[in-house]
Amino acid sequence: MKKIVFISAAFVAALIGVYAFRTKPAQVVVNAGDTDSTVIKKIFDETLENGKAYNDLWFLCKKVPKRLSGSAGAEQAVDYTYKLMKNMGLDSVWLQECMVPHWERGAAEEAEMIVGKNSQTSRINICALGGSNGTTGNGVTAEVIEVNHFDELAVLGKKKIEGKIVLFNHPFDEKFVCTFNAYGEAVGYRWAGPHLAETYGAVGVLVRSMTNSLDTFPHTGVMRVDSLRAMIPSAAVSTKDAEKISELLESGTTVKVHMKMNCQWFPDAKSHNVIGEIRGSEHPERVIVFGGHLDAWDTGEGAHDDGAGCMQGIEVLRIYQALKIKPKNTIRCVLWMNEENGGRGAAAYFDYAKAKNVKHVAAIESDAGGFSPRGFSLDMKPEQKNKVRSWNALFLPYGVYDFSRDGGGADIGPLKELGTPLLGLTPDSQRYFDYHHTEIDVYENVNRRELHLGAGAMAGLVYMIDKYGL
Amino acid sequence: MKKIVFISAAFVAALIGVYAFRTKPAQVVVNAGDTDSTVIKKIFDETLENGKAYNDLWFLCKKVPKRLSGSAGAEQAVDYTYKLMKNMGLDSVWLQECMVPHWERGAAEEAEMIVGKNSQTSRINICALGGSNGTTGNGVTAEVIEVNHFDELAVLGKKKIEGKIVLFNHPFDEKFVCTFNAYGEAVGYRWAGPHLAETYGAVGVLVRSMTNSLDTFPHTGVMRVDSLRAMIPSAAVSTKDAEKISELLESGTTVKVHMKMNCQWFPDAKSHNVIGEIRGSEHPERVIVFGGHLDAWDTGEGAHDDGAGCMQGIEVLRIYQALKIKPKNTIRCVLWMNEENGGRGAAAYFDYAKAKNVKHVAAIESDAGGFSPRGFSLDMKPEQKNKVRSWNALFLPYGVYDFSRDGGGADIGPLKELGTPLLGLTPDSQRYFDYHHTEIDVYENVNRRELHLGAGAMAGLVYMIDKYGL
Repeated sequence: MKKIVFISAAFVAALIGVYAFRTKPAQVVVNAGDTDSTVIKKIFDETLENGKAYNDLWFLCKKVPKRLSGSAGAEQAVDYTYKLMKNMGLDSVWLQECMVPHWERGAAEEAEMIVGKNSQTSRINICALGGSNGTTGNGVTAEVIEVNHFDELAVLGKKKIEGKIVLFNHPFDEKFVCTFNAYGEAVGYRWAGPHLAETYGAVGVLVRSMTNSLDTFPHTGVMRVDSLRAMIPSAAVSTKDAEKISELLESGTTVKVHMKMNCQWFPDAKSHNVIGEIRGSEHPERVIVFGGHLDAWDTGEGAHDDGAGCMQGIEVLRIYQALKIKPKNTIRCVLWMNEENGGRGAAAYFDYAKAKNVKHVAAIESDAGGFSPRGFSLDMKPEQKNKVRSWNALFLPYGVYDFSRDGGGADIGPLKELGTPLLGLTPDSQRYFDYHHTEIDVYENVNRRELHLGAGAMAGLVYMIDKYGL
Repeated sequence: MKKIVFISAAFVAALIGVYAFRTKPAQVVVNAGDTDSTVIKKIFDETLENGKAYNDLWFLCKKVPKRLSGSAGAEQAVDYTYKLMKNMGLDSVWLQECMVPHWERGAAEEAEMIVGKNSQTSRINICALGGSNGTTGNGVTAEVIEVNHFDELAVLGKKKIEGKIVLFNHPFDEKFVCTFNAYGEAVGYRWAGPHLAETYGAVGVLVRSMTNSLDTFPHTGVMRVDSLRAMIPSAAVSTKDAEKISELLESGTTVKVHMKMNCQWFPDAKSHNVIGEIRGSEHPERVIVFGGHLDAWDTGEGAHDDGAGCMQGIEVLRIYQALKIKPKNTIRCVLWMNEENGGRGAAAYFDYAKAKNVKHVAAIESDAGGFSPRGFSLDMKPEQKNKVRSWNALFLPYGVYDFSRDGGGADIGPLKELGTPLLGLTPDSQRYFDYHHTEIDVYENVNRRELHLGAGAMAGLVYMIDKYGL
């Protein structure tokens, strides 16, 4: 692209001799007289040039890829991130206890479809939904009935559903530009589908994976689990396999599925939120809190969901240290435990905040992937929204322009009850559900600069909120 | 992210019964009374739901991945895209002849570094720069001298450079948010470095790859070639290897490099631009032209550079057909040949336009990758820029907000002389140079929705320009 123009411009610049590289630059810090736009630029420069989030994410993803709540990996992740923040020389690093659900996928999951009169079999790609019971004995084998919409359950009735495996096959609506809106419309089938199918006598559930992508990966995620934990075996099936089964059924062919899963429940386990902070110079009792969740589904490495948000939170603190910015209020990074299947870490943080009457100036969550930031969603009073939006021009040079959306995030959500203004980092959403809750949500699919730009956006906003309040 | 909120919202929506899927939707077309925002929405909906660019890109990338100018692959790509447009039932599809340079990489390229007194050898990753001569005999072996900036050449002088291999090691400046700016600053070393080093008696050149990424891939690209075509062998070296060599040299260790390349020049070859159009209903003689370049470096599949731009251009025409939009002016997709190492296709199109006195309403180029669109750069009169910017609100819902940059593109650039307003699609640039001119610029690294959003942005802008002029 534009090579001709670029080449000549660069060539001229080079010939007139702009020395810049390989001379060690002086340490950049924020000075008292810096304008807001200068500080924001220094913040982005710092993370783009010296950001550590991407390297730290490598350690998290490669050393503790499996960190579903209650697992040994989750406790190793707590330990790793606690030490990581401890080594930064922050003012305070601490653990906040919470009891979390403990569900395990167990050994190999497998399924095959058995098609037509000749009973031709072929493997299909499934993974248990989080919270599902495993199968017993040799697994479940039953005829599949397809449901595209919840309303069809009542139409089909117990007579047609009983003894069958229900395939909920509700695709994402591609017309939504923000893919989270498509997810929001479809995820009810993963959440409520198993429970509803069971009430009609189904013996198993397959849910079309929650993704825009037509791929071979099953995308796991949490399902509604009743208190008796006696749910029928329920799994996500890849979109390609869902389409295949659907086409066969539509052509009048009988399709059976055999599925075998070894997942099971264990007693609740002790775990922790991991918290690090820089104390406020004027109002140490007031807190700006930000971060992501440390737990992750066990299918991949939880790189985008939500190793990215955790490392961005820690990076905000590092940027403050590197630029020697002294916040007026305490700035606090929280790595929440158990966002994926319980929200117990969020609840523990809320309980602590309520009990101790902690005054939160604002809460910022990053849990939409480590992609190029485009803006922040806002859940706060109209006059507070106007204040944030008045800062728009400061963030525009970094591609952060959209402060129009509503919402905060699952982990900071409870703080709304305490009157806390909530903000959610909103990166470009196009690729999020390609990786979401699959084996390909790995470090290699995160781009260093995109991750750091997100951290810069968060740090810039923390700076403005700290300086001007909300 | 936001699972709690989403789940409950989706669940409620589901229970009240919003039927939408699996009922074949009525054909959406643009109607006479549609507002601009309605048309733009229909355009984006059409490409997000039914876009063909991504599938067509698969064919281009997998069937004709190697399509450097002058190669057999380039002619197959001409043939494939000509037929592709022919089968669409456009008003006119034609080929425009041009003679192109013909350079070939030849068989395996290889290099190793030979370190210190013990002459320890290890492989390094190189690839010939486009236009370089190959090595003769058993290849070149010489001591490496590092140059970080052109000015250093004069300081070192012939005495220190003669007989050596110069390593131009000028990294991207990470502080540029738009990575093309970093490229613009660094690419002069790839373009002019070999020529300059030769004037000081160097026997070979290694250029640090043009990328933000610290990776193992050499990134090829065009270099300046004098008319004698007697240049010293010049290659890109991966950023990791450049760093490795640099560290060794900085520690005082002698580093030799042995390199062997079989690239060579052939006589110019006949090739073509591929052109398809829908004739204007009111002013068939006035043309809105758009597209990308069909040639690609031979290292990968030219997926982002610039299969994406080609397929987006064709998709604009398809969107017009699907929505039954009748343009007032002729809308024309051009797949330019030879952008990478000559610009002969652009020159041929310009010659034709000048000779036939073709009136271009506007020219839009897509050659910055198939990533999420963020805006368009503009190269036109101030009042024309204001007109385009007045449409901003129409594109904002699709994440297209930035009309602030200058510039058009290499293939449409010559048309400026004819007074044509130029526009360049500007996608998110963070990942572009991860893939640029390497073996990983492949179909798998393009996201379907990102590609189609870019096509939608182009089609929307073509629609507005066709309706209101510039």
